[in-house]
Amino acid sequence: MGSILLKNVLLDGERRCVLLRDGRFALEGVTQESAADETIDAEGFAIVPAFYNAHTHAAMSLLRGYANDMPLQTWLQDYIWPYEDKLTAEDIRRGSGLAVREMVSTGSVFFNDMYFDIEETIDEVAEAGIRACIGITIMDNHPLALLEEKKRFLSEWKDPTGGRITLAVAPHAIYTVCEERLKMAAGLARENGLKLHIHLSETVTEVEDCLKAHGTTPVRYLDSIGFLGPDVIAAHCIHIDREEWDILAARGVTAVHCPCSNMKLGSGRFPYELAIASGVRIALGTDGCSSNDNLDMREECKFAALLAKLAGDPAIAPAGQVLEWATRGGAEAFGIDAGVIAEGKVADAVLLDLHARKMQPCFNVVSNWIYSADSSAVARVFCGGRTVYSRL
Amino acid sequence: MGSILLKNVLLDGERRCVLLRDGRFALEGVTQESAADETIDAEGFAIVPAFYNAHTHAAMSLLRGYANDMPLQTWLQDYIWPYEDKLTAEDIRRGSGLAVREMVSTGSVFFNDMYFDIEETIDEVAEAGIRACIGITIMDNHPLALLEEKKRFLSEWKDPTGGRITLAVAPHAIYTVCEERLKMAAGLARENGLKLHIHLSETVTEVEDCLKAHGTTPVRYLDSIGFLGPDVIAAHCIHIDREEWDILAARGVTAVHCPCSNMKLGSGRFPYELAIASGVRIALGTDGCSSNDNLDMREECKFAALLAKLAGDPAIAPAGQVLEWATRGGAEAFGIDAGVIAEGKVADAVLLDLHARKMQPCFNVVSNWIYSADSSAVARVFCGGRTVYSRL
Repeated sequence: MGSILLKNVLLDGERRCVLLRDGRFALEGVTQESAADETIDAEGFAIVPAFYNAHTHAAMSLLRGYANDMPLQTWLQDYIWPYEDKLTAEDIRRGSGLAVREMVSTGSVFFNDMYFDIEETIDEVAEAGIRACIGITIMDNHPLALLEEKKRFLSEWKDPTGGRITLAVAPHAIYTVCEERLKMAAGLARENGLKLHIHLSETVTEVEDCLKAHGTTPVRYLDSIGFLGPDVIAAHCIHIDREEWDILAARGVTAVHCPCSNMKLGSGRFPYELAIASGVRIALGTDGCSSNDNLDMREECKFAALLAKLAGDPAIAPAGQVLEWATRGGAEAFGIDAGVIAEGKVADAVLLDLHARKMQPCFNVVSNWIYSADSSAVARVFCGGRTVYSRL
Repeated sequence: MGSILLKNVLLDGERRCVLLRDGRFALEGVTQESAADETIDAEGFAIVPAFYNAHTHAAMSLLRGYANDMPLQTWLQDYIWPYEDKLTAEDIRRGSGLAVREMVSTGSVFFNDMYFDIEETIDEVAEAGIRACIGITIMDNHPLALLEEKKRFLSEWKDPTGGRITLAVAPHAIYTVCEERLKMAAGLARENGLKLHIHLSETVTEVEDCLKAHGTTPVRYLDSIGFLGPDVIAAHCIHIDREEWDILAARGVTAVHCPCSNMKLGSGRFPYELAIASGVRIALGTDGCSSNDNLDMREECKFAALLAKLAGDPAIAPAGQVLEWATRGGAEAFGIDAGVIAEGKVADAVLLDLHARKMQPCFNVVSNWIYSADSSAVARVFCGGRTVYSRL
């Protein structure tokens, strides 16, 4: 793999020389004269960690703009589900490809997916040179034969990229997967050392139905059946009380906040204050394009920061903290030593053009990136030290 | 002025030929063979109305990223005001130029400004070929001599662009301008046929202080002194009750919603339900870059739509309605016959690249534009039939 030297790039307020070598960053002793296969004069550019999109349904980029601005049940039952029923493997390939191209061009190098026909998505990720965790979706309406097929796929699958792609077991949600299958999913994940990806406490209806069915709230219910652990990636986490946050934090669960989706579907405001106070690991995700409608983590960061502040405290969720959720939070959740530009860390990064209109003037790179910029500032994206997108 | 023919451009779901001639749109009888000074093959592009940014402080682009994520009073008193005290006319020129370039590149052709050293801003607008309403700011801390100077400027000023720029009288807010000066400002505006631009009911503190000082709420107070009328452009309008909305609607006031600023400063959620029910004219604005931190009306639209839905109704504020607030709402408020792509209307428009990643697939242009795209989809911007920005 070729090494890349970034000369005089702005990093944490200073001009530095940064070497990307063997998939990692080297800074110590690196100078303008350090040897590299490619040298980039990065005067006028800043380097920031690349985004980790911790919850999405990539191929739903196909449904962008298909149905919007309608009540949740109409949207799901009359539009989204019937449309999904007609999707072919070839469609999933196209949708995944479009999603991957959008993600790299907006600064993401990883996504945690939950959908179907996952071989198609895996191929697109492999080809694009980025990372993903691809969930094998489990639902009650899957016949036993399909379930067996999924288990077989999981046991036989080999990562074609040598480390960039992992599988996860993805029971959809507590209202679509019964207790028996939730336990089966957890067992399957733990036997194979995989993550468990689930939607959790997204709507008031989910909580109310759980109270009726199980006499307790979703987090307590999942905890009572032994589902929660450090391998659980829980998307949404909106309607969760203080004690439940403490449970999630104690079990090492990662909570994935998806502000655009939660706002657009009217699901509610993520309880930032409780989540932060609990010390739980927070990551950010875009959710799928039918409820967002893009996969742009920069925009997601701005929504997260501003939705947090909406309640009255402009000091909550500062730009740097939100960027951490969107980078290191996701990377740590998936056991990847990325999300920080520092010696020896995995070289996943975005080169930002400081001459982009929305990046000027530049008192604070991170603030400009999160609150002001858009994809026009993304000059180059690196994944594991390799260039996966470039406009230079 | 040269005419421009757009061949086969996507307009409201159909491929049309659109002529921009003498500053206006012609569609009737226009074909691919119609004569024009410039012909653009617009297959693969859609045309939408250009944005009207109805509340901003353009030159504050200079303060982008300067101070963020802190309590309101610290932010204002320790950072923003001291910084502003040091700004020179040359700074205002640079900040206005940066702002104008950002605005055109993100699809805006008009802004309603309130700041100082306005000659500098006027020059930048004139040069860029766009439109603006430039407010002459009135505050209690302006000495009488300065007030007289402003009046003289107003009476002697001639629009250098022949119709693209107007002045407004801009009393800052009820908490910075006394009753006598508010009345003076209203009189000055009405004598000269100008708009009145004011911040209104932005924070709970403003309402509480008004109750203490005047025994009533801001809208009722302004109405009691004869301030409200169809010439009033009121920015923010957050803490306003049902009866006050009826007053604003009855007086013909335009309410300018600035969602990013309101969220970022923790000011509160615009009461969409009440505002819409009252029938008041709604426009959108970005506010200044120190509280947003950009001037991108596309992003502002997404924030408006999603903040409206957050309260639980995904059907409120659909993409088309929000785009109307951001285009026709602003245009009508300032008496400009734009905001719709139709026969005889003022030719202010944006050409969108349908091949931009975030615009694909294209079930619905407006939905993709508002919910998904960013400035990378802006291919060309027209103001009064002239190209003011192009990446083609």
